[in-house]
Order: sequence, then structure tokens, then C-alpha cells
Amino acid sequence: MNCELISVGTEILLGDIVNTNAQFLSRELAQLGINVLFQCTVGDNRERLLSVLKEALERNDILLLTGGLGPTPDDMTKEVCAEFFGKELILHEPSLKKIEDFFAVKNITMPESNKKQALIPEDAIILENKNGTAPGCIMEKDGKAIIILPGPPKEMVPMFLDAVKPYLKKLSYETIVSHNIRTFGIGESAMTELASDLLESSNPTVAPYAKNGEALLRITAKSENEQAAEALLTPVVKEIEKRLGSYIYGIDVASVEEATVKLLKDKNLTVAFAESCTGGLCAKRVTDVPGASSVFHCGVVSYSNEIKNSVLGVSKLNLDRYGAVSDIVAAEMALGVKKLSEATFGVAITGMAGPTSDDPEIPVGTIYIAVTDGEILYLKKLQTGHNSKTCRDYNRIVSASNALNELRLCALSYPEKRSEGTDINEFIKKYQGDFR
Amino acid sequence: MNCELISVGTEILLGDIVNTNAQFLSRELAQLGINVLFQCTVGDNRERLLSVLKEALERNDILLLTGGLGPTPDDMTKEVCAEFFGKELILHEPSLKKIEDFFAVKNITMPESNKKQALIPEDAIILENKNGTAPGCIMEKDGKAIIILPGPPKEMVPMFLDAVKPYLKKLSYETIVSHNIRTFGIGESAMTELASDLLESSNPTVAPYAKNGEALLRITAKSENEQAAEALLTPVVKEIEKRLGSYIYGIDVASVEEATVKLLKDKNLTVAFAESCTGGLCAKRVTDVPGASSVFHCGVVSYSNEIKNSVLGVSKLNLDRYGAVSDIVAAEMALGVKKLSEATFGVAITGMAGPTSDDPEIPVGTIYIAVTDGEILYLKKLQTGHNSKTCRDYNRIVSASNALNELRLCALSYPEKRSEGTDINEFIKKYQGDFR
Repeated sequence: MNCELISVGTEILLGDIVNTNAQFLSRELAQLGINVLFQCTVGDNRERLLSVLKEALERNDILLLTGGLGPTPDDMTKEVCAEFFGKELILHEPSLKKIEDFFAVKNITMPESNKKQALIPEDAIILENKNGTAPGCIMEKDGKAIIILPGPPKEMVPMFLDAVKPYLKKLSYETIVSHNIRTFGIGESAMTELASDLLESSNPTVAPYAKNGEALLRITAKSENEQAAEALLTPVVKEIEKRLGSYIYGIDVASVEEATVKLLKDKNLTVAFAESCTGGLCAKRVTDVPGASSVFHCGVVSYSNEIKNSVLGVSKLNLDRYGAVSDIVAAEMALGVKKLSEATFGVAITGMAGPTSDDPEIPVGTIYIAVTDGEILYLKKLQTGHNSKTCRDYNRIVSASNALNELRLCALSYPEKRSEGTDINEFIKKYQGDFR
Repeated sequence: MNCELISVGTEILLGDIVNTNAQFLSRELAQLGINVLFQCTVGDNRERLLSVLKEALERNDILLLTGGLGPTPDDMTKEVCAEFFGKELILHEPSLKKIEDFFAVKNITMPESNKKQALIPEDAIILENKNGTAPGCIMEKDGKAIIILPGPPKEMVPMFLDAVKPYLKKLSYETIVSHNIRTFGIGESAMTELASDLLESSNPTVAPYAKNGEALLRITAKSENEQAAEALLTPVVKEIEKRLGSYIYGIDVASVEEATVKLLKDKNLTVAFAESCTGGLCAKRVTDVPGASSVFHCGVVSYSNEIKNSVLGVSKLNLDRYGAVSDIVAAEMALGVKKLSEATFGVAITGMAGPTSDDPEIPVGTIYIAVTDGEILYLKKLQTGHNSKTCRDYNRIVSASNALNELRLCALSYPEKRSEGTDINEFIKKYQGDFR
């Protein structure tokens, strides 16, 4: 079964608001096994809305419209849809009563204009609006349906979940189940090549996605029920796990920070961050995860060299000789915050986020990441390759993601593989008294 | 002139990502005086993309496509558009070279699959991608144009601004200029009431928007050129400034952090943050602003009471008696980070972000903000009123915004109005030895 989403509203065409309704509804419909092959946005304009309805009805079983149910004259979605299906609009007394009460509660007399919100196409299914004045409705004709919902998400979302979802469940005969296999440290194309043969499969399907330096594979199966779909998914997921190994940071987790916090919790490990170029982004992302307090001790955003020295104890000598963007300063920052916090791991990030570099020898996008447990040091140098005017956000996000992933990899094999790291005191000693 | 936005990508149809590109491009096109009457999203599918191209070209002068330029087989936007316009794809050596270099910088050998990204439709205008591997392009035929841009915003946005915007400017005859007047501390409805009469105006138009506890007014004028449009805007902007006063934190600035950093720079003031519930978000947002290093000394994310005491010197007694979410702890945190950093201002945030509260007497959404110069204390208690399961992000964003705005207000009248604050040492002394 195919459904087209039609968002009605000039404010979307002008770019005043982001169309989050489309994402919410697309995800919900996918889970119901209903295909969304097209999404469309059109303004509050009779002719154009009619032309969109005509096009869309030819290629779909269901049209789901949001927006244009307000009291003002330019709100006309219900009117145009009724015209399109050749239905009369009839005043729905219970809805009118609800709207009047809605204003009464606020001790406001209902503006006359709101009355039109109680007009409903004849023999439509009425969808009560528990969070606003405009009811929604479902019109059926010749085995096809037009569903009309209000635009504001706080009214649309509950109306969809309470009334529309059960309605659609009855129409749909198959279930779609997806798993997202999230990776870090492998590019989209390299990941895709490792799984290339699996991409051919039609049920389940395997599709690659990439964003902000991360790549993921989505495995999606279609079947008559959830168990049957899972049965199709399991062997493919297992195979991909075998091929991608520790590049995978989680399946169906939201982010690398969520996966890392969970891992630290499970292993009773804790962390503290010393951040320079990421400016607190690591701490922010870790504390985005509810309950992070049990693994996160503290963060120090040491933006200036003075603070790197006074708070974290980075040696002035090394700051002068090698500069703030160097492996030795990253190591000393990590050790400093480890001692300050007494967390299991101190993690440090220092780098050149851009837009410009203040050192000709250090291109924008050069990042040093250090992780230490106080004795062993894990170091990573990163070249994001992004150095345009607008690279700053990207470089900060990718730097933070890499630091969180380095932490995850250390925690994963901790303490068994400590030996693979370098002795941090030896490392720091190397730099004392001699130039590189 | 009419332009239709066509977003290509199954991930949008499945609801995996919000289509923010559509908003960005719609706004940009509106400012160029180009009408966007339709937006459409279609999957990575040859037949459906062809049908959309056909429909869209009939009703528009320009088609602007985003997405589907990746290296994987399901990326086919360029191929299908070339087929639609009857053009051959030709390997563009400079683009191939750029792609190879892109991988070389990262010391990765280029996967074979990336080669297809260097294929360009014959005699197309090539749009260099400074932030990724896929170049964009513009194809022209019979006085109409198809513009193809990559999907990732970090690649699409700069490509649009650098190459596409100048291209479109030449085609458009009317100029639209907007100014965004951004406020903080006044609700959308209160702001709208203060400007209600201005909302009637048709050129320039005045429109209110609200998001994450902030409200803004957008003033938009249409005219034959920029100067004429500005002449229409100036008196209205002046009038609104008079009415909204210090609620306005900036005009055409991106955010309260940008306005605050600029103000601190102009007045040679500096800041350090001590964050609890915001977990580094204030530091992160301030360092989102390029050049923040000249005003931002350091941030301490003191998530645990131990760190509040050991790093910031908050007294154990007050932490035990009054709890971490209290005005006295906020004040001691601010003083602690001020001393640690020697910045002009120490700013502290402590509160209950949720989703749950560990103290029955402190509802989720209770936030304390303290700003001090070491002698004078400015305190603010905030009740966000958001305590649902999903309130955490909102509470953290609004807490950080309020802290940044408090800092802005202090800096605005600094040092003239210091006297309006409380003596911080007196304030702290109050709590010593006696319970409230």
C-alpha cells in the first residue's frame, strides 16, 4: 500500500519552518509497512493544491495531508479536499462545542472565524483534536482515502497516534522491521564494498548511509509479522557483524556517545574530558545521555594555554616548543584531567578546528586525541581534510566523535589489552630537554 | 521565476533524517525573489525520479535537486538528470584528481566506486565541492535549468552560497531583503502584542517566530534593488528597536552566543563557565563562534559534587545542606571558576534537566544561574515548566540560552551598573553556620 505525504503551508515553502511532520509520519508509516514513495509540499492555494491531489491520488492509495486547518481565510485544506472528493462541508456541533469550550477555559470569547474549523466533509471520520481547536478527518472514496491532520506537531502527533495509526493498521497486512548497524572509523564506500554482495538482497534490503564521518547500514525486512521479519534479519545482521567487527559501535543505538556511556556503565569505568578545539562538545554529548552522571566525572574546556598549564598542569615548556596542537600537549592534557578527576580514563582533544589556522605548519582539520588511564597512553592523530570557511562545525563534531570512539575502543578491551598502549610517563619524558 | 526543490533520498522517505536542506534553500530562494511553489521528495529510483522531473519541469523554470551524488550504486541523481536532458556523462579529470587528493590527505586509497562521482553531464557548469568528494553541476536546456547539489548540508550549503546563489542572482529581477530581530526574555505573544499594528503592513512584512524559548521578528521588503528594499526596512526596524529595547539581543545575528561573544569582544571582557546540568553546552555554544578564544578562558563541567568541591571550591557543607541545585551552590560555582580562570565573569549553571528529579522538592526544570565578577553577584532562578519524559534537551538548551543572556545583560551595563548586583561575599556568608 502506498501513501503520499502532502504538507500544506506557505511557511514551509518560504523556509520559515523545518518540516518535521514529514519525518515523523514517514517513520510511522514505514513501521506500518506502508510505502511512502513521494512527499510533497504545496502552499495555501486552491489550484495548486487540487493539482497535487490529482497527481498524488493517481499513484497512491492514501493521501496524508498536514496543515491548513486554521481559522484564517488562507487555511483551505479541508475545503479543497472536500471539493476534490465532491463532498459537502457540514457543521459538526460537537466539534463546535469543543472549540467554544477551548476558548471559554481561557475566558476568551470565540472569534467568529474559528467557527469554520468545525465544518467537516459529509460522512467523514472525525479525528478529535485534544491539543487544539481544529479537528482532523478521514475521507474515503472508491477504496482510497484522504487523511487530513492539523499542522502543529503538538496537535498532529497525538492525533496520528491515537486515531490514524489504528485506522492504518487495519488496512496494512505486512510489518516492516529495520535494524541500524552503526559503524565508526570506516568510510561509507569502504563499508559498502565489504557488504557489496548483501546490497543486492531484496528482502531484507541492506542500505548504506553516511553522516558526519559516520557510516551505517540499515537492514530492513518485510513480512506478515514481527517475528517472521526478525527471522529474515538475524542471519544478515550476524554476517555484517562478522565482516565489520569492531568498526560497529552499536546496533539500533542513537549515537556513539550512547554506546560509549552504556559500555562504560557495564564495565564500571568512568571518564573525564580535557577539551580544547571541541570546546565542551564531548562533555555535552556524553551528558545528552540520561544517567551519564554514573560514568562522567568532569570536563575541563581549556581553551587558553594558561588554563592548560594552570588547571591541567601541561608544561609551559612543551606548550611553547610544540604548540597547543601537538601530541605531547594532548597527552599532558589527558593525564592532567585524569589526575584532577580520578576517573578511570582522561580523554583529551586538541586541534585546529578552523575556519583559519594560526600556524602555517598545522593545517585546519589537524586533531590530536589522547586517552590515558594514568599509566598507559593511547594517541590518535586525525586529518579531517575539511578546511573551508564552513568546516568548523564539522571538524568539531568529527573530532568529538573520534574522541568518543577512541574512548569506546579503549574501554572495550580494558584492562586486558592495556599492554598495547605506550607508557605515558616514558612518552612525556621523551619530550623533556630535547627538541624533536 | 519559479523553482521547484526536489530532494532525492530514500532516507528522507523513511523518516531517517529531517529535510533541513529544503528549509535552507527555500529561504535563500525567497530572498532572491524566486518563487518556490512546490517542494518534493522522491527516493533513489530511476522511474519515479524521471516522473518527478517531468512534472516539475512543466511548471517551473528551474529545478534544484539535492542528494543522490554518493559513490554507491543507489546514488543516481546525476545519471537520471543527464538521461532526462539527453546528455552524456563524461569523466571530469580535475574532479577525479580532487577526489583522489581528498583520500590522499587522509592516507586512504580511493575506493573504485568513488570514481563515478567525477562523471559530469556534457557541457554542464561544474560546481566544485570544497567539503566532500561529489561535485555538483548545473545543466541548461531550452531556457530552463537543472541544478544538482550533494545531500549533506555541510557540502550543499557552501556550494549553494559560493556558486549557485551568484548564478541565480543573475537570473532574478526582484530583490527581497529581510532582517531578523532576535529577542530573549519576552514570549512570542507578548512580543507580537507590542508590534501588533506593524504585523498588518504588507511591504515590508513583519512576521513573528518562536523557538526554544526565543522569539524573533522577521521584517521583509521586496523591491527592484537592495538599496530600495533597505529604505523600506529601516524605519520599521528602528520602530521595533524602540518598542522591544534590551529584549533585543541582536539583529541578523545567528544566536545569543554570537551576540554575547561580540559584546564581550567589543568591551574587552572575558568569561569562564562552571556547568552542571548543561554539561558543557554553554562552552560548546560560545566556542561555536569563530574567534571565541579572545573572550572565553575556560569551562569546567562539574557534574559530580566531588568535582564541584575539589575543582571549584564549593563548600561541602552547602552541597550537603542545600543540595547541588541551589542558589548558594550556583554562586560558589561561579566564584570558583572566576578565581580559577581569572576571567572578568564567572558564570555558573546548576539545575534539574530531567527526565527525572532525584529530589521531590525540586521539580524537573528548576535551574539556577549565577554570574559574578568576583565581588558582585547576579542570580537568576528559572522554572522552564517542562518536565515530560522528553524535556531534557529542551531544558538544557533553554538553561544555556538563559545563562548566555544573563551574561550578555551583565556585560551590557558593565561596569556602570555593578551596584545593582548583590555583594557575593555577603551572600555566601549568609549561608554559613545557619540553615535557611
